[in-house]
Amino acid sequence: MDKVSADSTWIIIGVMCLLMLSLLLNSVLLLSKFAGMGMGKGKGMCLGGEKEMMTCPAVKEEVQVSSSSNGSSTTTTVVSLDSIINLDHGDPTMYEAFWRKMGDKSTLVIPGWQLMSYFSDIGNFCWFLEPELGSEIRRLHKLVGNADTEDRYIVVGTGSTQLFQAALYALSPPDATEPINVVSASPYYSSYPSITDFLKSSLYKWAGDANSYSKEGPYIELVTSPNNPDGYTRQSVVNRRGGLLIHDLAYHWPQYTPITSVANHDLMLFTVSKSTGHAGTRIGWALVKDKEVAKRMTKFIELNTIGVSKDSQLRAAKILKAVSDTCEIKVDQADNFFEFGRREMSKRWELLREAVKQSGMFSLPEFTSDTCNHSGKITEPHPAFAWLKCEGEIEDCESFLRGHNILTRNGKHFGMDSKYVRVSMLDREATFNQFVKRLSNMHS
Amino acid sequence: MDKVSADSTWIIIGVMCLLMLSLLLNSVLLLSKFAGMGMGKGKGMCLGGEKEMMTCPAVKEEVQVSSSSNGSSTTTTVVSLDSIINLDHGDPTMYEAFWRKMGDKSTLVIPGWQLMSYFSDIGNFCWFLEPELGSEIRRLHKLVGNADTEDRYIVVGTGSTQLFQAALYALSPPDATEPINVVSASPYYSSYPSITDFLKSSLYKWAGDANSYSKEGPYIELVTSPNNPDGYTRQSVVNRRGGLLIHDLAYHWPQYTPITSVANHDLMLFTVSKSTGHAGTRIGWALVKDKEVAKRMTKFIELNTIGVSKDSQLRAAKILKAVSDTCEIKVDQADNFFEFGRREMSKRWELLREAVKQSGMFSLPEFTSDTCNHSGKITEPHPAFAWLKCEGEIEDCESFLRGHNILTRNGKHFGMDSKYVRVSMLDREATFNQFVKRLSNMHS
Repeated sequence: MDKVSADSTWIIIGVMCLLMLSLLLNSVLLLSKFAGMGMGKGKGMCLGGEKEMMTCPAVKEEVQVSSSSNGSSTTTTVVSLDSIINLDHGDPTMYEAFWRKMGDKSTLVIPGWQLMSYFSDIGNFCWFLEPELGSEIRRLHKLVGNADTEDRYIVVGTGSTQLFQAALYALSPPDATEPINVVSASPYYSSYPSITDFLKSSLYKWAGDANSYSKEGPYIELVTSPNNPDGYTRQSVVNRRGGLLIHDLAYHWPQYTPITSVANHDLMLFTVSKSTGHAGTRIGWALVKDKEVAKRMTKFIELNTIGVSKDSQLRAAKILKAVSDTCEIKVDQADNFFEFGRREMSKRWELLREAVKQSGMFSLPEFTSDTCNHSGKITEPHPAFAWLKCEGEIEDCESFLRGHNILTRNGKHFGMDSKYVRVSMLDREATFNQFVKRLSNMHS
Repeated sequence: MDKVSADSTWIIIGVMCLLMLSLLLNSVLLLSKFAGMGMGKGKGMCLGGEKEMMTCPAVKEEVQVSSSSNGSSTTTTVVSLDSIINLDHGDPTMYEAFWRKMGDKSTLVIPGWQLMSYFSDIGNFCWFLEPELGSEIRRLHKLVGNADTEDRYIVVGTGSTQLFQAALYALSPPDATEPINVVSASPYYSSYPSITDFLKSSLYKWAGDANSYSKEGPYIELVTSPNNPDGYTRQSVVNRRGGLLIHDLAYHWPQYTPITSVANHDLMLFTVSKSTGHAGTRIGWALVKDKEVAKRMTKFIELNTIGVSKDSQLRAAKILKAVSDTCEIKVDQADNFFEFGRREMSKRWELLREAVKQSGMFSLPEFTSDTCNHSGKITEPHPAFAWLKCEGEIEDCESFLRGHNILTRNGKHFGMDSKYVRVSMLDREATFNQFVKRLSNMHS
């Protein structure tokens, strides 16, 4: 080979290398863009300071990227600063894999001149509910058999968090001299106290653990079933005269728990965040028996946000329709949304229980199997969160895991002690696998 | 022509008539569907009962349909029950015509697996702000020259109504023994009192007309400029020590008012509802000088709705981009969004002033022209609402107009007397034309 052709060869190799590098860089950027996340520098705005409801998942993304380049080299003893796994919040990114596979079936298209009015359904007291979403909500509940929508009013909300506040507003006596007490059995969802109290309302106030509540007079009890954080099926515990119930059924879906009966409570809350995984869409719905309560909830949403984004409602309708469509095919096929979810959750719980066993430092709740009316199968609950307990001498499980760069939520925020933490089971597969790997290597 | 061929001709004519009827019916149904509205029976849920922030536009749609079939046969003396014109709220459907003309340029497309995470921008304290929306907000303000975004933090909200509450929360002293007083100069936006007070917060409380406010100590003053309902440019009026200002600049855009300076207040609120006409999208933004205030506003939105719908944020980004793109073409072209808006509003105000003159029963605010820095033209303000006054002996202008089946909002809700009403100028052309026609035929 003469010099000129050798030079050309090197130039070609050089250009190819640059091209490949550029491609690689683009892929990584694209990946982070599609995931809806930038690539943090390990200095996310949300990691310092006071305890937030949402802590920033900044550095977790770096774990994913690095793990795809250097494989499974993470150890439990040497933990570098750039490999934090954030499982503090319940970001349901696990479901991306399913929706990718679905392709165009759930793609939303809205021309610029549509959905411009404030109004969605002028004949409905809930004038901002898109009728298409209402229909798909009823259809899905009927197919799954998890909640009764007959003789129920639907109120749509900007996520079930807004609906929870709407329900507090609707159930509180408007002219009472004292705010009504709001309770939930511990361990309860960590955000209930702050959401109830942050505006210092004279209508309602947080009154703590329902198990120890003994006051006379009206009260509101929040019943989360399956429960966040511990995954157990729940019923009201106070059961006194004057009690009003809000049932948060965000996790009452076949991927998390066997559906054994059709829920028919007075006020039930659901959300797409946990049912289909679309947390960024901010859509929840309430099924409400009493029309006056439903009207007051609607009034809350009118005053709080003048209705609910129509774009998101149409997206949610499209997504729920796609889920229902998959329910109408054979239940045990992988294309069935709930079967995908159940298999994935079952696999993850198996891996987690294996890691906990291998480590010997932790314990997990135990569940009993039951027949799911939806699938017809006998199945165990597979909660969206693991309520992990540090056994032995570790008193602050969150700090201990933080020392291993695993971010979880301290049990004290749920009305329990710090030996417990809540761990999200719904993150992307790479993150979850990193987590169980790290856990299984911990030894006292 | 023999009998058989005559029969065939009649059959063909019959079939064609049926086809045309069916087509006509479909068009009407399609129109009502595209408008995001059902066709009410004149018994909309929202028309009875207590005064609501939003009253139902049910029957208005029938006016449009009937007016397209029977032309301009409406009179002011005989008003049938099925021809109510609802201009009570500011539904900005006027803008549909512009966005229809834009075609695909502003169409939103979101695959089912995108935007699933709660998080949008982990490096930003406002972790739920889609960076694309942030960029388009800054770009548009720069192009229009209506607000300073340099050294300002952006907080996105579910409409500016949520941001208003976030601002109250952020500006209220958290540990004060008394709620902070919230005031605005009358006539003020009719929803300010109820939005401030509906949760009976101990942090803040409505304290009425800023013009007569004389207390010592901290307070919050809401400055809406141009003002809703009367369209005048405003400045703060209390101007005492301890005063905190929220500037609601929803109407500070070139279609409504000549832009004479770059607004650079501490806390400014904007919304797509009034700027581009996308009320159903529920997106607003705040430009905030102080980082701690912006962080507390973010906290409010986190606790209230765990962020803001990503779907709607991306749609808003797409719409703002399309507006900015039209701003970069020659300013006086019809394709320029603000020029479309200005021309349309100018035409409407001319028609309204003509009708008021012809009737002799009403009066309207007068405005002075100024040079708009954006268009370079001398122009008059053309507010989104007409602040109409019944002259002469009519004491309740709203009741009077209701008697003519025109729904408007009573001046008493704005802190003024009932001789005034607020009338939306932003409805679809057919509705607006019906309104001015009816008004011009009224005589005392």
